[in-house]
Amino acid sequence: MRSRDEKASDRFKCSEKERVFFEAGIKMGTIYHQFVGTPVSEHNVNELERAMERSIMVQPFVESVRIKIDAGRGKKKDTYDYVSLTGEMIDAVVRVRMNNITVTAEMRYDRELDYPLMYVSEVSL
Amino acid sequence: MRSRDEKASDRFKCSEKERVFFEAGIKMGTIYHQFVGTPVSEHNVNELERAMERSIMVQPFVESVRIKIDAGRGKKKDTYDYVSLTGEMIDAVVRVRMNNITVTAEMRYDRELDYPLMYVSEVSL
Amino acid sequence: MRSRDEKASDRFKCSEKERVFFEAGIKMGTIYHQFVGTPVSEHNVNELERAMERSIMVQPFVESVRIKIDAGRGKKKDTYDYVSLTGEMIDAVVRVRMNNITVTAEMRYDRELDYPLMYVSEVSL
Amino acid sequence: MRSRDEKASDRFKCSEKERVFFEAGIKMGTIYHQFVGTPVSEHNVNELERAMERSIMVQPFVESVRIKIDAGRGKKKDTYDYVSLTGEMIDAVVRVRMNNITVTAEMRYDRELDYPLMYVSEVSL
Repeated sequence: MRSRDEKASDRFKCSEKERVFFEAGIKMGTIYHQFVGTPVSEHNVNELERAMERSIMVQPFVESVRIKIDAGRGKKKDTYDYVSLTGEMIDAVVRVRMNNITVTAEMRYDRELDYPLMYVSEVSL
Repeated sequence: MRSRDEKASDRFKCSEKERVFFEAGIKMGTIYHQFVGTPVSEHNVNELERAMERSIMVQPFVESVRIKIDAGRGKKKDTYDYVSLTGEMIDAVVRVRMNNITVTAEMRYDRELDYPLMYVSEVSL
Repeated sequence: MRSRDEKASDRFKCSEKERVFFEAGIKMGTIYHQFVGTPVSEHNVNELERAMERSIMVQPFVESVRIKIDAGRGKKKDTYDYVSLTGEMIDAVVRVRMNNITVTAEMRYDRELDYPLMYVSEVSL
Repeated sequence: MRSRDEKASDRFKCSEKERVFFEAGIKMGTIYHQFVGTPVSEHNVNELERAMERSIMVQPFVESVRIKIDAGRGKKKDTYDYVSLTGEMIDAVVRVRMNNITVTAEMRYDRELDYPLMYVSEVSL
């Protein structure tokens, strides 16, 4: 009897290598759209980074995740002094692997583009 | 010169006591709609609970937060064996306080209603 | 036999009037934390406003909702020229009603506070 | 002078074809993690589907999007009778294209896997 993993793979009309790029993209979209909006200040930034990393780790084929949030002016001067997480604050590196193929995807604010770019920074076989 | 807190209070056309109920409601909506959808398994459930608590703590007027997630069948049997956080899994208790008024709000799956109910469980003056 | 509405009301340890403020707060938190992060440009801003209004309308006790998004520089000059919805762009007015009590809550970027403030702008009995 | 599109492309350490798979994955993650949790009933399901489609369309390289939500028991029998959007309810088909390469990605609840699977259903050159 075939496993759930094998059955899922049957649905894919592309090579395994191409699939790894697709899976890496899913993780980028997840990081951004699940967590943007979360209240963040210097008081919770580390816990939030770790929780984001761990939640991506439970998704399929993730080998490693590193998240860094630059909350900027995070000093809590008064009651209203915290920010909502935006894509510009997120710096993420995710390694996705199937068998011997590893794709490294990154998300970070690109000053030249003035955009939080998601891109593939490395592929290894 | 008036502080940001005082200026914000000026916008409210209700009593301070009534405002505490409003602020408690905001926190309930935040917990639910920010985090529902997050990938969760036994491997990250504790970190996620703590990060949710800490992110609510940075919002204004929050005195305490306790979050418990019941991820149910959280055994990771294969690659696809994790779940997305739903409202039904969340059990939250949030205390919101302004001066001497404290409102305790709770969110939990109510079996009788078959609904993740958000309600006010206690008011103290 | 008691209805689900009556059973839910039993859980509340506060007056009905106080509950309306709580319910109004929930709607504010929902608008913000469900939709912040959504891709928005001049091409979808109207549909997004309407869909946000309609999704809040299906929540309990909502009498009316008006959402206006100021996507700012929304001209699509190249492939990357769209923005993610932030709280600062949202202008919302929600009326929540139980029996004869109506609470109007608003969310809008307050220039003086430099903060997207959620507040109660009107109460009517 | 190079355009923002060309500069963004420079960051990618993979072929353009591989990138299309990555971009398709991003859109899948966006659909799921931006909108899961949204209140949905028969009263707003169509507007929500259209707004989701339009918001994905403003992202880069999207050629077409079709979203169908199966809100299941969507009859509004009482005040609490609506649901929160879950991945299981979403049926999505997204076509992502760069130059002459088109990747079709789909997301749908797979009964056999008991999982809302995201997969690549077609590649055309």
